[in-house]
Amino acid sequence: MPLSPEQQAEIDVQRSNPQPTLRATAPGMEKHLYTAHDVLDHGFIRVIDYMGDDAAICQAARVSYGKGTKSVQNDEGLIRYLMRHWHSTPFEMCEIKLHVKLPVFVARQWIRHRTANVNEYSARYSILDREFYIPEPSQLAAQSVINNQGRGEALTGDEAARVLEILKGDAAQTYDHYAEMIGETDENGDAKQGLARELARMNLPANIYTQWYWKVDLHNLFHFLRLRADAHAQYEIRVYADAICKVVADWVPAAYGAFEDYRLGGATLSGKALDCVRRMLKGEEVTQETSGMSKGEWREFKEAVG
Amino acid sequence: MPLSPEQQAEIDVQRSNPQPTLRATAPGMEKHLYTAHDVLDHGFIRVIDYMGDDAAICQAARVSYGKGTKSVQNDEGLIRYLMRHWHSTPFEMCEIKLHVKLPVFVARQWIRHRTANVNEYSARYSILDREFYIPEPSQLAAQSVINNQGRGEALTGDEAARVLEILKGDAAQTYDHYAEMIGETDENGDAKQGLARELARMNLPANIYTQWYWKVDLHNLFHFLRLRADAHAQYEIRVYADAICKVVADWVPAAYGAFEDYRLGGATLSGKALDCVRRMLKGEEVTQETSGMSKGEWREFKEAVG
Amino acid sequence: MPLSPEQQAEIDVQRSNPQPTLRATAPGMEKHLYTAHDVLDHGFIRVIDYMGDDAAICQAARVSYGKGTKSVQNDEGLIRYLMRHWHSTPFEMCEIKLHVKLPVFVARQWIRHRTANVNEYSARYSILDREFYIPEPSQLAAQSVINNQGRGEALTGDEAARVLEILKGDAAQTYDHYAEMIGETDENGDAKQGLARELARMNLPANIYTQWYWKVDLHNLFHFLRLRADAHAQYEIRVYADAICKVVADWVPAAYGAFEDYRLGGATLSGKALDCVRRMLKGEEVTQETSGMSKGEWREFKEAVG
Amino acid sequence: MPLSPEQQAEIDVQRSNPQPTLRATAPGMEKHLYTAHDVLDHGFIRVIDYMGDDAAICQAARVSYGKGTKSVQNDEGLIRYLMRHWHSTPFEMCEIKLHVKLPVFVARQWIRHRTANVNEYSARYSILDREFYIPEPSQLAAQSVINNQGRGEALTGDEAARVLEILKGDAAQTYDHYAEMIGETDENGDAKQGLARELARMNLPANIYTQWYWKVDLHNLFHFLRLRADAHAQYEIRVYADAICKVVADWVPAAYGAFEDYRLGGATLSGKALDCVRRMLKGEEVTQETSGMSKGEWREFKEAVG
Repeated sequence: MPLSPEQQAEIDVQRSNPQPTLRATAPGMEKHLYTAHDVLDHGFIRVIDYMGDDAAICQAARVSYGKGTKSVQNDEGLIRYLMRHWHSTPFEMCEIKLHVKLPVFVARQWIRHRTANVNEYSARYSILDREFYIPEPSQLAAQSVINNQGRGEALTGDEAARVLEILKGDAAQTYDHYAEMIGETDENGDAKQGLARELARMNLPANIYTQWYWKVDLHNLFHFLRLRADAHAQYEIRVYADAICKVVADWVPAAYGAFEDYRLGGATLSGKALDCVRRMLKGEEVTQETSGMSKGEWREFKEAVG
Repeated sequence: MPLSPEQQAEIDVQRSNPQPTLRATAPGMEKHLYTAHDVLDHGFIRVIDYMGDDAAICQAARVSYGKGTKSVQNDEGLIRYLMRHWHSTPFEMCEIKLHVKLPVFVARQWIRHRTANVNEYSARYSILDREFYIPEPSQLAAQSVINNQGRGEALTGDEAARVLEILKGDAAQTYDHYAEMIGETDENGDAKQGLARELARMNLPANIYTQWYWKVDLHNLFHFLRLRADAHAQYEIRVYADAICKVVADWVPAAYGAFEDYRLGGATLSGKALDCVRRMLKGEEVTQETSGMSKGEWREFKEAVG
Repeated sequence: MPLSPEQQAEIDVQRSNPQPTLRATAPGMEKHLYTAHDVLDHGFIRVIDYMGDDAAICQAARVSYGKGTKSVQNDEGLIRYLMRHWHSTPFEMCEIKLHVKLPVFVARQWIRHRTANVNEYSARYSILDREFYIPEPSQLAAQSVINNQGRGEALTGDEAARVLEILKGDAAQTYDHYAEMIGETDENGDAKQGLARELARMNLPANIYTQWYWKVDLHNLFHFLRLRADAHAQYEIRVYADAICKVVADWVPAAYGAFEDYRLGGATLSGKALDCVRRMLKGEEVTQETSGMSKGEWREFKEAVG
Repeated sequence: MPLSPEQQAEIDVQRSNPQPTLRATAPGMEKHLYTAHDVLDHGFIRVIDYMGDDAAICQAARVSYGKGTKSVQNDEGLIRYLMRHWHSTPFEMCEIKLHVKLPVFVARQWIRHRTANVNEYSARYSILDREFYIPEPSQLAAQSVINNQGRGEALTGDEAARVLEILKGDAAQTYDHYAEMIGETDENGDAKQGLARELARMNLPANIYTQWYWKVDLHNLFHFLRLRADAHAQYEIRVYADAICKVVADWVPAAYGAFEDYRLGGATLSGKALDCVRRMLKGEEVTQETSGMSKGEWREFKEAVG
């Protein structure tokens, strides 16, 4: 994201002007406020605001009158207990507001997470910037031959070059045409009407960047991160999830630690899978055929238990 | 929507094979089931399923043990009372499931209504069809000179022709390139890898058609329709809302009648506006200056009370 | 539930009058429609309406134009795949509407599941019936000595008798007083005003029965059932969840089967727990001390893997 | 609320220890933090945390990079515009977290507002306090003779005295029995088991106090306040809404001003009602009979336009 000098100056002012507050304050999060973390070629996330910290989770869980006097160790234990037993409401007591710049095709996946508040840049009202996501060569992946919904090896040579040529060329051309359609003068400088922005935008491809404010509670954020920081998520949304993970780890370290252990690093085993584990621990040699699982399930089971 | 013969045959089978059910049945809605209602140049809505009818709204409002013995007239009165006093939960007891085919830029507005269930055609998994929305000449509107977020007069002459040329040309070219990128043979018929579908789709513009299953309760559907069947909504989503309105009028005639009177045809007046009405009814000449309203409010007020 | 003859007659009429419909119909569910399944001493659940079946889940997952031609086996495999990978939206395409009669303290737990539609019997408007939940002797459990939020052994002898005496006596007395307060004549038959119902209800204890219509999609119903049909749920809500499970098994047998295997019978293992399984499968003797888990986690882990 | 000295000391510490923050800070709200505002005889609301201010609403509406340079007057105009046109998402960018102590029958109405986060004091885990709502004599209202769901005049004389006697007597007795049932010694000091808390609570009436943390965004809070600060809301929830209104007016004065004008002080007129206004403004004498409205609608219309 190439911040303009004006934008940078504005951020600098905000960052240099702390105000006193009686609210819960997370020192690890203050340092992130307003600072853009780059994602992809033109995108970013930046924290606009937050509410609560690890102690606020415990406070809600206890519905206590104040911060309580429990030691940090007790708070960590409580947070791990809450996460393990799917007690989600205390995590909902923390909230984060992000400003995100992202390609439209990523935005369309992201918005499927419904329990969040969103204000998107309006292309009915405003003119979109000429910024398109063009993948790094290492991310120019072929269709997976195993998985209908996945990527294989990176393209190489002429095929890769041709793809980049197409993506760049079509982005440039469709944006030129967009600008031409909404323009109020023609190539001779003569006045013309200009197509309505809400119509002209339909010519723009899904790799153009948009931006929004996105506000979500910590429980629903963890749900988003579990699905989108996962190895099966599309790379272009995963890098956003990864960037958010880093911020959350600084904001609510105990909650993030529990999330990492129980969700990101954990796995849900079916009744059949648990039964297989029990049989294997007793020394039985279990195969896919004797497991009662389908081939797909068995492969995933083997990945989980090694 | 050019239905293939196979699709038409399948729909014919479904429509010719009624099953007995003990559930509430809305005769006016049965005739719509599976039948596509055309919208825009390639889009449609079609009803896949529904739950409840006018009587189900009243039944929930009364939490009665059965259908009750109230006359239809009483049901209408109750439904109007519920609508007038914003008792929304009885309307939530009806549900509709639609199959919708729509341009991506319309889908992006539509999805902002969060209280609904959605299954969209996956362009990670599947290949999108070569179908793009190209506006009718009458809809090729210029940017409004009054309203930043609206349309003015239709473009004419060379400017209109140039816009159509651009939209058609870029749609064709970007789709050709999409097909080329995912293809597994090159122009000589030699094998190549083919770009992952989840990447190739980013080259497609926002007027390409997508489709989804959309399921929503009647209260939230009315909220959607109030905003999207409104004169200020973008034309391309309004025509979908209009088509749904016709279906809903056949499904729950009493509820739709109340919705039309209290929501679509109604207006919310502010405290200041009500005060002006009272003064005007007493014979006072009220102007914008003496109304306490801003110019924008005053204009909208005059539109409402004539 | 002592149905009045009028109510039973009304139900009989509804059950004897099937209508033709083109909608998806689940034969296993039709038999449940309107029939009350008893729960606790005066409660029940009964199915008022439903939308969709196993095929509707697959249809949404495929966003196909019709029912498709896939065999039942394929549908089962797809449903298991969707459940295993937390693809929740296809399950949201089914919906159920229940009429539930339940004690107020159960209703207060139940309502915490927010993604549902509810119409409750209004004690502002109507007079509550004289029906209270009085536990079976086998359910008169002592406070658990292990778990702050649980039950131990059943009370016996004089202590059990005394508890029943209190619950019955206070229910009778508070209801008598409720009736007296709202009554419009005093004990001499003289006219009095009668306290507003919305105030008088505050004298009634939490074991009085209320009733509501509750409508929810299948995904959110499964979430409810996973938490409330669990061994750690309070007995008085668990019996409702169990009754609903039986109905759902008849409605969407493939989805319910997958739910049973992956959710009810499954377990989520943390990263630490998976690591322990791997070490144990390699022959290592792992103890709580060497597991990296707390005592509570270790106990739950041992329960899961036997 | 009789705060214990320890609680008061804890609050004093929190209030005396401001921390620097870079977040948006609302000076009018800082003074409310942690301070309990009394409601009813033992209840309160107190602000635990908040996110955003009037400027944050505008910032989201503009999806700008910073606070923008618009004057306060412009912000007010924008906020009024957003409120008038039902642009709800910018208001969702503010969030408030309250600690509320309230009678159970009020809590049951309150929780019907689903789009909020809640952590309630658990009577499965903990022992409830001996605190009951007993109405002021002026609030001991009779059932309305006009409105099934409302109050008439206050009771007087013996009838009022008898109601208070019942409410106080039953509260004391049911709580004594609750304490007896969960107690671990009998009246002779001999050990007994003690009924599980999750069961014993069922003996407690609906005027006992509970407490919770309640977190909600400003848009949904306004929706709650519009319904619950309304003259038709039950008095016992309206006083909570009124107390929250005062806090919100200090927090986001521009947004609250717009809410007061467009929602609290406004009215939605139906198509028929607007037509009547137009006819009346032209000098026509319109009566209920010629209005096309029912008697109830006409009465409400006359109240609105005076």
